[in-house]
Amino acid sequence: MHILVQKYGGTSVGSVERIKNVARRIIKSKEQGYSVVVVVSAMSGETNRLLDLAHEMTPEPTRRELDMLVSTGEQVSIALLAMALQDMGHPAISMTGAQVGIRTDANFTNARIQHIDDKSMRAELAKGCIVIVAGFQGIDQGNNITTLGRGGSDTTAVALAAALKAKYCEIYTDVDGVYTADPNKVSDARLLREISYEEMLELASLGSKVLHSRSVEIAMNYNVVLHVRSSLNTTEGTLVVKEKKEMEQIRINGVTSKTDEARVTVYDLDHKPGVAAAVFGELAKQRINVDMIVQPSSTEATHTNRISFTVKKSDLKTVEGVIENLREMGAVKGKHAIDRDIAIISIVGVGMKSHTGVAAELFAILAKNKINIEMISTSEIKISCVIAEDRVLDALRGIHAGFGLDKEPEKTAPPAASARKRA
Amino acid sequence: MHILVQKYGGTSVGSVERIKNVARRIIKSKEQGYSVVVVVSAMSGETNRLLDLAHEMTPEPTRRELDMLVSTGEQVSIALLAMALQDMGHPAISMTGAQVGIRTDANFTNARIQHIDDKSMRAELAKGCIVIVAGFQGIDQGNNITTLGRGGSDTTAVALAAALKAKYCEIYTDVDGVYTADPNKVSDARLLREISYEEMLELASLGSKVLHSRSVEIAMNYNVVLHVRSSLNTTEGTLVVKEKKEMEQIRINGVTSKTDEARVTVYDLDHKPGVAAAVFGELAKQRINVDMIVQPSSTEATHTNRISFTVKKSDLKTVEGVIENLREMGAVKGKHAIDRDIAIISIVGVGMKSHTGVAAELFAILAKNKINIEMISTSEIKISCVIAEDRVLDALRGIHAGFGLDKEPEKTAPPAASARKRA
Repeated sequence: MHILVQKYGGTSVGSVERIKNVARRIIKSKEQGYSVVVVVSAMSGETNRLLDLAHEMTPEPTRRELDMLVSTGEQVSIALLAMALQDMGHPAISMTGAQVGIRTDANFTNARIQHIDDKSMRAELAKGCIVIVAGFQGIDQGNNITTLGRGGSDTTAVALAAALKAKYCEIYTDVDGVYTADPNKVSDARLLREISYEEMLELASLGSKVLHSRSVEIAMNYNVVLHVRSSLNTTEGTLVVKEKKEMEQIRINGVTSKTDEARVTVYDLDHKPGVAAAVFGELAKQRINVDMIVQPSSTEATHTNRISFTVKKSDLKTVEGVIENLREMGAVKGKHAIDRDIAIISIVGVGMKSHTGVAAELFAILAKNKINIEMISTSEIKISCVIAEDRVLDALRGIHAGFGLDKEPEKTAPPAASARKRA
Repeated sequence: MHILVQKYGGTSVGSVERIKNVARRIIKSKEQGYSVVVVVSAMSGETNRLLDLAHEMTPEPTRRELDMLVSTGEQVSIALLAMALQDMGHPAISMTGAQVGIRTDANFTNARIQHIDDKSMRAELAKGCIVIVAGFQGIDQGNNITTLGRGGSDTTAVALAAALKAKYCEIYTDVDGVYTADPNKVSDARLLREISYEEMLELASLGSKVLHSRSVEIAMNYNVVLHVRSSLNTTEGTLVVKEKKEMEQIRINGVTSKTDEARVTVYDLDHKPGVAAAVFGELAKQRINVDMIVQPSSTEATHTNRISFTVKKSDLKTVEGVIENLREMGAVKGKHAIDRDIAIISIVGVGMKSHTGVAAELFAILAKNKINIEMISTSEIKISCVIAEDRVLDALRGIHAGFGLDKEPEKTAPPAASARKRA
């Protein structure tokens, strides 16, 4: 019997009535002949209620105790969902992360799954039980409760699907799937039927909130077929799968934007080995994620340099502390500047690997819309540009229309093997 | 270093501010030189909130899932209390029942503790940590979460004290200790400084709500000194200890009442062996607790009999079902009657074992107050009478005054060894 893993987020289990709806949907899948494992989040609002209690208690709760506290949210959901299923006549059993045997490292509030013991789940599935697993949580070597950080329930679902070799991992959410652009910003955004792990990974890290990148990484590593779909209707959503040859026929699959980053520029750095390493080494020590980095060629005359990079606005205070330290240590001598009014727009598509001229086309579209490009960064399947924050909607809509993302793509001729440069 | 176990109930941890107060009290004990293990209940109202959710989900939630659900209440409390202690500069660690290794049987919602592994607690105490344990919960052999039923957090505290050979187990509550009578009903009720396990056990099963009888049983079996005291002030409360010789000099230590039982009388039972066994065997199968049983001598003429017994009013529906079944099986031939308007008043004291005339004195007090006795039941240290429910306050006050319970007892002369009959 094929195993199906389903994940329902906090909104889907946000009330008694919604939990009953989820139960009915699970039963349908069971009746289609699947063995079903379900991962659920805390009821919407519950995690915040618990965090508020913690912060009333102390301005800086320890991370171990935070995990002990917030992991109760998912435990409540699994018990209620199991009750709903049993009430509808279907054997079901709830299991905490500890009971499943989801072993993680000890990095509280942001732990990584190291191992899953599938024995207890398989034993219950063999009895015909629907297995309901608490998302977002695990235990470390010392049996301390850990949580997996943002998008943790998705990560749990994908990891269980990998451990159980499930046929699909269905991620139920409040949108119909993955779109060519955010439908709230681009009205003719189109639902994608299929997308590769690599593309999904770029989209996730570029601000598309449908899936967290860690869950996509695990899916890619273990070849888990993800199905992102709505818990509010029965529309087929988006399949996230291994890249297929024909996917390269489509030049780009989506355009995204994010406005939660700021650009930091540090001037007059010594032009000698180790300076950039010192800057980014210190930032890494403070767990600051640096997104884009641009270092223009140095001027031979001065032997100094400047570096620009983008970081989350919420990390700016820490970043300024790091720069002050570097200044005291003598590694930074000049001034630095911060620009908060930026946006990063990106286009993503595995087709870039074989189609030429994609970047040139992007720059032309932005130029036509009189949008200035302030930084550029590229990967094999992505091009990102920093632009002024107040031009982000114009950019998204211009790019979406310019690349014809609103239309089902025509299958272009298979690219010549030699045509693998894109600009 | 001596180990002290403290237990705080739901009211004591009912808000962020109250949890902080509990933390301050714990720190005081730590600073007196104790290694402290603390057991806490769910914040007041939380367990009911969770049960309401369950009953919105299904009229009959399964007991395993109920335990999965309600055990989260204590988990929230331990995390918050640990945060409060850490915030005040004291190392503390929260532990669930599973993490401590509180192994129980699999009787969900009313499990019994079978074994406690003290290793993890001792390791944390050795580091100077205050250990905060979730009350009311454990795990069975299959790692399912179980709960211990009514008074479960007291049971956890006493069991931990036994496992750790603690010097004291302090039970913090919202009253100052154990009184000679319920102070809400008898205004001059007196706080007892010391009471034996046996007396406390009788008082607990007779409706005194300060301690649940199971926790007293464990304390008695493992010789754990209980200290029942208030979490609202620093008054010394009541010590519950092993019986001492001098305790027998006090005739009675308390008077209690309960009004949550009803009397069932079954008429015209065959006067032959096995009939009573059939009746009470069936009741036991349905897990009905029968309290008092009275069977008057049968009349030789008819060879039939009647039996009266008392059960919880909330069990009456089940009891009537049992009687109907027995009627169909032919074991019960006559009618039955139910009287809901009864009260059971009881006096308790180890001194009864050596003082004569206690029962006679009780009956005289009731007679003087024109209170009719409808059933009598006795044990070595207790006398209970069924009376009319509307006379219960008169009876309590009459007995309390009649036996002079409001005054510190005079030490009477040691009783003669031969004078061991009491009525």
